[in-house]
Amino acid sequence: MNLQDRTLLASGFHAPEPGVVEVLEDALIAIDDAGTIVSVMKKGDVGYDAAYEKARSKQRLSTLPSGSWLLPGMVDLHIHAPQYPQLGNALDVPLEVWLERYTFPLEARYQDAAFAKRAYSVLVDDLIANGTTTALYFATIHDEATRLLADICLEKGQRALIGKVVMDNPDQCPDYYRDASTDAALSQTRAFIDYVRAHPDNGDGRVQPVVTPRFIPSCTDEALEGLGAIAKDCGCHVQTHCSESDWEHGYVLARHGVTDTASLDRFGLLGRRSVLAHSNFLTREDMETVKVRQAAVAHCPLSNAYFANAVFPLRAALEKGLHVGLGTDISGGPSASLFENCRAAVMASRMLESGVDPALPAEQRGAGGNARIDFRDAFYLATAGGGVALDLPVGLFAPGYRFDAIAIDTNAADGTIRLWDELDSGDHILQKIINTASRANIADVWIDAKTVA
Amino acid sequence: MNLQDRTLLASGFHAPEPGVVEVLEDALIAIDDAGTIVSVMKKGDVGYDAAYEKARSKQRLSTLPSGSWLLPGMVDLHIHAPQYPQLGNALDVPLEVWLERYTFPLEARYQDAAFAKRAYSVLVDDLIANGTTTALYFATIHDEATRLLADICLEKGQRALIGKVVMDNPDQCPDYYRDASTDAALSQTRAFIDYVRAHPDNGDGRVQPVVTPRFIPSCTDEALEGLGAIAKDCGCHVQTHCSESDWEHGYVLARHGVTDTASLDRFGLLGRRSVLAHSNFLTREDMETVKVRQAAVAHCPLSNAYFANAVFPLRAALEKGLHVGLGTDISGGPSASLFENCRAAVMASRMLESGVDPALPAEQRGAGGNARIDFRDAFYLATAGGGVALDLPVGLFAPGYRFDAIAIDTNAADGTIRLWDELDSGDHILQKIINTASRANIADVWIDAKTVA
Ligand SMILES: [Zn+2]
Ligand SMILES: [Zn+2]
Repeated sequence: MNLQDRTLLASGFHAPEPGVVEVLEDALIAIDDAGTIVSVMKKGDVGYDAAYEKARSKQRLSTLPSGSWLLPGMVDLHIHAPQYPQLGNALDVPLEVWLERYTFPLEARYQDAAFAKRAYSVLVDDLIANGTTTALYFATIHDEATRLLADICLEKGQRALIGKVVMDNPDQCPDYYRDASTDAALSQTRAFIDYVRAHPDNGDGRVQPVVTPRFIPSCTDEALEGLGAIAKDCGCHVQTHCSESDWEHGYVLARHGVTDTASLDRFGLLGRRSVLAHSNFLTREDMETVKVRQAAVAHCPLSNAYFANAVFPLRAALEKGLHVGLGTDISGGPSASLFENCRAAVMASRMLESGVDPALPAEQRGAGGNARIDFRDAFYLATAGGGVALDLPVGLFAPGYRFDAIAIDTNAADGTIRLWDELDSGDHILQKIINTASRANIADVWIDAKTVA
Repeated sequence: MNLQDRTLLASGFHAPEPGVVEVLEDALIAIDDAGTIVSVMKKGDVGYDAAYEKARSKQRLSTLPSGSWLLPGMVDLHIHAPQYPQLGNALDVPLEVWLERYTFPLEARYQDAAFAKRAYSVLVDDLIANGTTTALYFATIHDEATRLLADICLEKGQRALIGKVVMDNPDQCPDYYRDASTDAALSQTRAFIDYVRAHPDNGDGRVQPVVTPRFIPSCTDEALEGLGAIAKDCGCHVQTHCSESDWEHGYVLARHGVTDTASLDRFGLLGRRSVLAHSNFLTREDMETVKVRQAAVAHCPLSNAYFANAVFPLRAALEKGLHVGLGTDISGGPSASLFENCRAAVMASRMLESGVDPALPAEQRGAGGNARIDFRDAFYLATAGGGVALDLPVGLFAPGYRFDAIAIDTNAADGTIRLWDELDSGDHILQKIINTASRANIADVWIDAKTVA
């Protein structure tokens, strides 16, 4: 059911800040014809009954069936769109080998527009079906394929931020998959920004271009400098990888004499609309810099288990007030589901806190202190936290926000959530949803109040 | 499609030993009318064409459709059946608090047979739908509810091993949920064994009784001694928890002056058909004892992230030759899926190897060495490894084994597996299945060659 210019009566959940879940019981959410939320009223609010009657009498009331729960759509802050065909494979070698052995050869295939179109179509359909309403994508170095990804997101209705990947450093990028030159990389970046902004189907800016240095190792300093200038010039989002693994962190220290964060900052790539994937090895000073610049971290817990050599200190980052959201890091993370990444984020935080090696005494085993997060934090990261990271009004049910949402049907035939009336209430229902939902439970997906799945 | 007395033509996978996956391409699996595998022929084997023709001409050939893959049914070595209603909840406190606050009150509800019947029916249906063809269950202390669980497994066709839980220690068990006396606990255990063995619907012994001291803390020494004697007497399986967390491991050291393993061994509870859940803190000597006794470990990676304070050193146990399988530990682990536990086992092993705390230098961070497993090992654990652990002929496609199997439909509408013809072949297809399958991909489930879901 499309919900533009309608009022939705639904129960559900959202998380206005980390760790804080608000239970919406029989909420009335009024939406305008552009898909913006106009008002959210809870049972008992002044005017609730009148608003209900008004919507009903004008035949503008839609009702979510009992057993279904409304959640904000999920915001995935880190996706390598071209890697979707290897999702679930290629997890056996370290990052630097993985790129050469599996990933660069796969990404190079997107030279073939037909392959790109097929793969990107499947990806966007699957992400929407998994409840991802906003996606921040790395594409490839290729003009045509990257434009196709934008076209496909526009056509399928997903909110998407897309970058043509820049990788021009001959030391780190293979001949068969590298920008033709630094100049070409920069001009292609500008051309893609223009393409997206001028796209006839993108009048409302639902799809946005992103300045995308792959990561410092794959870029020359000239490229990084040029991209910093473009970001400043166009006011675009920026995405890159930051201090992901021992190797990567060490590479930048060796080449630039400073950490990724400090280096990116020097190149003008750290701002309010920058998203840094991983960031596992941020120093205390780096965290301060990220905070001051109001940049964001895309925490990718599943991917980190395979490629990062450590767990991102998420609780510390949240307590410091950093903007943090979640990323699948398709295909470094072997799942296209942010639900599965919510679970992995909680699990990894527990393992960071208590440690892993049973041969050590308890007090030496973990990072100690309070490193854990719970499902409330994870849910925040996947929704409102992602919205804050991107500086977009998504991830909450509040006036002025876009109505990007999903309905979880706890009675779905092939679903995996079991509620028990006598046991489950309040945000424990959300906890079960976060921990046990699968794709079959995602009954509806709306973006800008339009049904997209 | 029921497959008794038929020949199945199918492609799929099984794992004869840890780390070794055999790809079955167009295999012909002949099954007798009792559900036992008579022969498995691979394309090119002598007699393959004749066997194919014979089955076809007798109209006894069934064919798995293209895009579907045959796997052995999954063996879940650790399930608390009564905890299913809290699956996905109650993950915020340590084991000893969790028992008192959430779990004992929930288990005590099974005094009510109507509640038990409803909950156990949903559980068994869901486990079968998730591909679990053999389940090792802790029930509760209650006679009637535990018999109901056996009845339900018999009715629904699941292969199940079920124990009436013994917990008679007033120091560790609450008044409202404790065996009436040690004698009562032992005689109820005997009575349940008799009930299952004499059950009119259990002529083939598909459901078996299990001697089940909850864990040492909840049992008196008299109960442990009595259960050891019963196990010896009846030749039953034994299940319990072993060295799960710092608290639990320390409790047994304090009370008995030796580790769980040594103590269980003294009580005669460690034998070829014993399954020890968790076992995270096994010493080198404990491992040796477990090996000598040919007992098995039920590794529960998801649960361990919440309750164990450490990762089970799985690779070391496998290299030592211990019997190990996988357990969901419903509801300590928040998933009813062994696929999700396969993923968690790999993830946890990677985190054990590389460590978790980015504040430490790489060489001090993890357990080091080669602690990782991959999808092949995890798949083995969930199938053949579980069969070896239980001393049951399940988990492999080989003559003499039961035909317990699942078909994975990679084209299922709500499924989550994406194969790419030009990229995926051999056991990479299995890797994608293990990493990305969800319940909707499980198209068929057979136990004893009968369709059960
Ligand atoms: Zn990435
Ligand atoms: Zn347990």
